Amino acid sequence: MQSRSEVTRQKILSSATRLFSLNGYDCTGVAEICDAAGVSKGAFYHHFPSKQDVFLNILNAWLDQLSSQMQNARLASQNVPEGLIAMSDLVDQVFQMSKNHYSLFFEFWIQAMRHPEIWQTAIAPYHRFQTWLAALLQSGINEGSIDPSISADDTSRIMIAMVLGLLLQAFFDPIGAAWGNVTRSGIKTMVTRISRRPL
Amino acid sequence: MQSRSEVTRQKILSSATRLFSLNGYDCTGVAEICDAAGVSKGAFYHHFPSKQDVFLNILNAWLDQLSSQMQNARLASQNVPEGLIAMSDLVDQVFQMSKNHYSLFFEFWIQAMRHPEIWQTAIAPYHRFQTWLAALLQSGINEGSIDPSISADDTSRIMIAMVLGLLLQAFFDPIGAAWGNVTRSGIKTMVTRISRRPL
Repeated sequence: MQSRSEVTRQKILSSATRLFSLNGYDCTGVAEICDAAGVSKGAFYHHFPSKQDVFLNILNAWLDQLSSQMQNARLASQNVPEGLIAMSDLVDQVFQMSKNHYSLFFEFWIQAMRHPEIWQTAIAPYHRFQTWLAALLQSGINEGSIDPSISADDTSRIMIAMVLGLLLQAFFDPIGAAWGNVTRSGIKTMVTRISRRPL
Repeated sequence: MQSRSEVTRQKILSSATRLFSLNGYDCTGVAEICDAAGVSKGAFYHHFPSKQDVFLNILNAWLDQLSSQMQNARLASQNVPEGLIAMSDLVDQVFQMSKNHYSLFFEFWIQAMRHPEIWQTAIAPYHRFQTWLAALLQSGINEGSIDPSISADDTSRIMIAMVLGLLLQAFFDPIGAAWGNVTRSGIKTMVTRISRRPL
């Protein structure tokens, strides 16, 4: 059972997610989050030092969940290229997130640009994720399953770009294409190009 | 020489671009745009029926400029794969746009999600651009320079995704990588994979 304190924390996070998505981060105040969550300002500040901290908690929880699912897909595969293909099946899950969550996700980029203190804190999880993917590609080079002439760093950025860019298009044009399939096909094209194993 | 009316129109567009980037679309009013541009509300509504129309004018001007530069790169090349590689040199120009413009660009996605009437109008230039790129890839298949087993539609979406996703990362982490080079390398990897010509 969740403690009362944890229930309060989750209420704040889910109300904030909804309000940020609906009205934007800048146009949402702590008072509105408290009203929507049915908690006092005292309770809010007991859990979070600031509105910005709420925002970063939402982001981190999302990235941590995604990383651990990707790690599991890798562990269940024989080699790195197969692991990457297995990870591409997680795409459907990401695409099935509500549109409200997408909106929050892009809002995050805008906030990071406007507020240097958000940027400094928020860049850490992005770097952690990109470094994790680059290390995975490097381990593929080391095990002989990935072309050693590629740059693991640049390739990790390009793969992240592909998924981000397809999310951006899916978010904007949800019925324009079978976005999950397009993404799997894009990842497979990249992985086939860098793999030394038949896929 | 520009007419006085055209000067007024440009003043409104440049003030709006700056304010939308700085404070966000929702938090910027027509009154503020008029103040910043030094024009009356009457002059504003003479040129634009609404704030939304200003936003769409900014977006369309940007996409039109990019399409015509890409068209020129194609016309100066021997075949489609070479044209695509030449187009990747335009990336530096896109990346050198001010951070303020980047911010506006991502703001646009959020606005399109929140306001169905923006979405309906704004999806047209995106579709025009994606259709143009798919037709270019199809003409490469027809001339025998591109692998006929690819889907021109899906590949156009994947290429757009790569550039969008790298812009997103560059915008967020400007000093983290030589983003222009990473993008050129990503495009070259994709084009090499689908090309039937040595590059």
